Amino acid sequence: MVSEAAASVIEALKSILGERLVTGQSVREHHAHDTSRLAPHMPDAVAFPKTEEEVQAIVKACAEHGVPVVPFGVGSSMEGHTIPVKGGISLDTREMNQIIEIRPEDFIAIVQPGVTRKQLNNELRATGLMFSVDPGADASLGGMASTRGSGTTAVRYGTMRDNVMALRAVAGDGSVLKTGSQAKKSSTGYDLTHLFVGAEGTLGVITELTVKLHPIPEAISSAICAFETVRGAVEAVIATIQYGIPVARVEFMDEVAIAAVNNYSKLGLKVAPTVFFEFHGTPAWVGEQAKIVEEITREYGGLDFNWSADADERNRLWQARHDSFWATKAIKPGYDLYTGDICVPISKLAENIVAAREDIDASSMTGQIIGHVGDGNFHTAYLMEPGNRQHIEEAETMAKRLVERALADGGTASGEHGIGIEKLKFMRAEHGDEAVEAMKRIKRALDPRGIMNPGKMGDKG
Amino acid sequence: MVSEAAASVIEALKSILGERLVTGQSVREHHAHDTSRLAPHMPDAVAFPKTEEEVQAIVKACAEHGVPVVPFGVGSSMEGHTIPVKGGISLDTREMNQIIEIRPEDFIAIVQPGVTRKQLNNELRATGLMFSVDPGADASLGGMASTRGSGTTAVRYGTMRDNVMALRAVAGDGSVLKTGSQAKKSSTGYDLTHLFVGAEGTLGVITELTVKLHPIPEAISSAICAFETVRGAVEAVIATIQYGIPVARVEFMDEVAIAAVNNYSKLGLKVAPTVFFEFHGTPAWVGEQAKIVEEITREYGGLDFNWSADADERNRLWQARHDSFWATKAIKPGYDLYTGDICVPISKLAENIVAAREDIDASSMTGQIIGHVGDGNFHTAYLMEPGNRQHIEEAETMAKRLVERALADGGTASGEHGIGIEKLKFMRAEHGDEAVEAMKRIKRALDPRGIMNPGKMGDKG
Repeated sequence: MVSEAAASVIEALKSILGERLVTGQSVREHHAHDTSRLAPHMPDAVAFPKTEEEVQAIVKACAEHGVPVVPFGVGSSMEGHTIPVKGGISLDTREMNQIIEIRPEDFIAIVQPGVTRKQLNNELRATGLMFSVDPGADASLGGMASTRGSGTTAVRYGTMRDNVMALRAVAGDGSVLKTGSQAKKSSTGYDLTHLFVGAEGTLGVITELTVKLHPIPEAISSAICAFETVRGAVEAVIATIQYGIPVARVEFMDEVAIAAVNNYSKLGLKVAPTVFFEFHGTPAWVGEQAKIVEEITREYGGLDFNWSADADERNRLWQARHDSFWATKAIKPGYDLYTGDICVPISKLAENIVAAREDIDASSMTGQIIGHVGDGNFHTAYLMEPGNRQHIEEAETMAKRLVERALADGGTASGEHGIGIEKLKFMRAEHGDEAVEAMKRIKRALDPRGIMNPGKMGDKG
Repeated sequence: MVSEAAASVIEALKSILGERLVTGQSVREHHAHDTSRLAPHMPDAVAFPKTEEEVQAIVKACAEHGVPVVPFGVGSSMEGHTIPVKGGISLDTREMNQIIEIRPEDFIAIVQPGVTRKQLNNELRATGLMFSVDPGADASLGGMASTRGSGTTAVRYGTMRDNVMALRAVAGDGSVLKTGSQAKKSSTGYDLTHLFVGAEGTLGVITELTVKLHPIPEAISSAICAFETVRGAVEAVIATIQYGIPVARVEFMDEVAIAAVNNYSKLGLKVAPTVFFEFHGTPAWVGEQAKIVEEITREYGGLDFNWSADADERNRLWQARHDSFWATKAIKPGYDLYTGDICVPISKLAENIVAAREDIDASSMTGQIIGHVGDGNFHTAYLMEPGNRQHIEEAETMAKRLVERALADGGTASGEHGIGIEKLKFMRAEHGDEAVEAMKRIKRALDPRGIMNPGKMGDKG
């Protein structure tokens, strides 16, 4: 049932957007969920603006009538971020997919928020530069910024926090904010850029981003190493980081995850706790890095250390790593994945991973652990049978224990997936009541009517 | 004349702080200015808290009576940040100088805000780690965070924005905010850390910082190269950055600056536009970097390229570079320095530096240009005779032109010094009216009584 307010907004927006304001069932259903197992909720309509002016018109109309606006990129978020839990308008940035400018000499690209990371990297091919942030999914840059996303290369090139230099956004009150500059650093004004990065669409709609680019390294090599134990694998990574080796990627997969990708991606990896490494640099420097790391892995029970400079082999391995989410789902078709995403100081990583593994082993479920371990970030995935009460109870208990251990160790409830819906319950434990209240006051300062992605961060929790 | 409100606060704080609440003339005078040439203004009293609880008590008392609180580190700010333009309490963090914890295995240190960068680096000596941010002055970390400071190493290791992971602060409403975590990354909550970094004490008082540490590189080498022209020197730097060489430091000094340090620091450098380089890495990798850069300098009119791995020689050169501010002052004893601090995209750097040099040459003043040019950041310094109206008029015109050129090129009015007082006039030109208004609303959300460093950012401008 569409409310009177929503009906007024839909009426107003139709005159602006025409066929780009959609109320049909199938499009609304597509915008009712993300990749999480959380309950869907349909928006009243879906808007496909092309310009900042249209975004502003949508936000202003919704603010006037108190109707929710929920920004939507490609829907690859993992914690329910884009689910319009209070209905309203799902603002899909799909049509805002223009690469506005690439400035190779300044290592920046200026893009609309609907541009995806693969789209940008394809466009960059001729420049010798790359956009580094790589969350696996071919997400939109607006979505990646809004979730403060990262992925496999963050250990070397940083997360979206580090790679968004400036942006434009329409705040919840309809004002157009220009944040940051195209200079590499600035000491002027409050850091509105980083207020929007990670705000999960609760303060406004990002309409343009200036992102950093990095030179594609002259040489890339990769290595894969199986270990006797989970602890040995993780401790080898910790030692690598503490040695100061600037690894470009360093990913951990436990036995269950390796077996799953072997099956899904037709690989013949040894089923053991495994670390994938990637090194970037000049040919000589890449070789030196690999040599040091090989010595480190030997000290920690590395069973082999397969080094390769072959691009095809490397791409096949990384594709398999990226497909891990789907490989895990394929272990038990029809099951739901209950995912975790904690990040801890690196010195606490081994004990947190070992404890997470022990929890899974003591449960009735199959589960795996993979991680961007160079950052201290890892993901658990529990395979839950739909409707199985024991599974959901065990999963919730394990997830709570996982986060509690992380917070006790100075870590965070989410390294890269974000808060969305279900992790709202951890906000006060992590940040304290006073910081959460301050966030709510900041939300009200930029979104006085509370229309931006309501029921999420800055509102609930 | 102390207002009734300030008298009430002083009375209340004396009972909490005892002799650490000072109303004597000389201490108040010391807190009436920073290193800028701006008009001093005395606080009504100076408080020296030791703990977060005492900071909270001060802020609460001041909030209750509407009395300003102006955080003060070591007073090395350059744009009037710490001048209590509306009187009130200067909150000096000198007694909050405890290094709370050093965690070498996590590459972090947790410190009180009054800890200075040299104090921390001395304490780190045994660990093989360093705190990288290096603004020249032995500033307090609280002050460096509040001005989003940087310096010579930012090109490689980042600014305070990149190196502050988490903090604690007492907001203007007296609430104690805990921001960020000790994990390397997080996707939970609005980024309050980066809201306080660069806020210049206008939102609250930072009471604790968690900062990143970096491994002291196995090998360090430096190089110095004189060039035929300013443009050639800057273009060699641009080419070095665009090649992807991870230089640890790359500093430009023009002829006037070189002559000044020759005189002040008893050096015999060739009087020509000069670039200082520093390379960090393994011995082999450092050598490879220097070799590539040497080839680049030859292409751009480098007159020589003196490479050295000698630590004493290197330290002497960098000390001279750091003393450049005082060396410049010594050119004309008794004169004031009018400093500029713009930052532009690197592709625009050469033309901005050349234009700034031409402006100085066309004026009646002596002036110099030095810069953290790897970031696109450079400083102008004009030597003004006190009371000389022509000098102040010329300086203001040149400063305005400098900023206008930077903004037209997508740059910023300040790369690292901050807004303070005099640069408030550039805030709207850089950020636009709507972003400035949003900043004001955010300020009111955290400091509803407007007591935190009033007359500055978030209030005026």
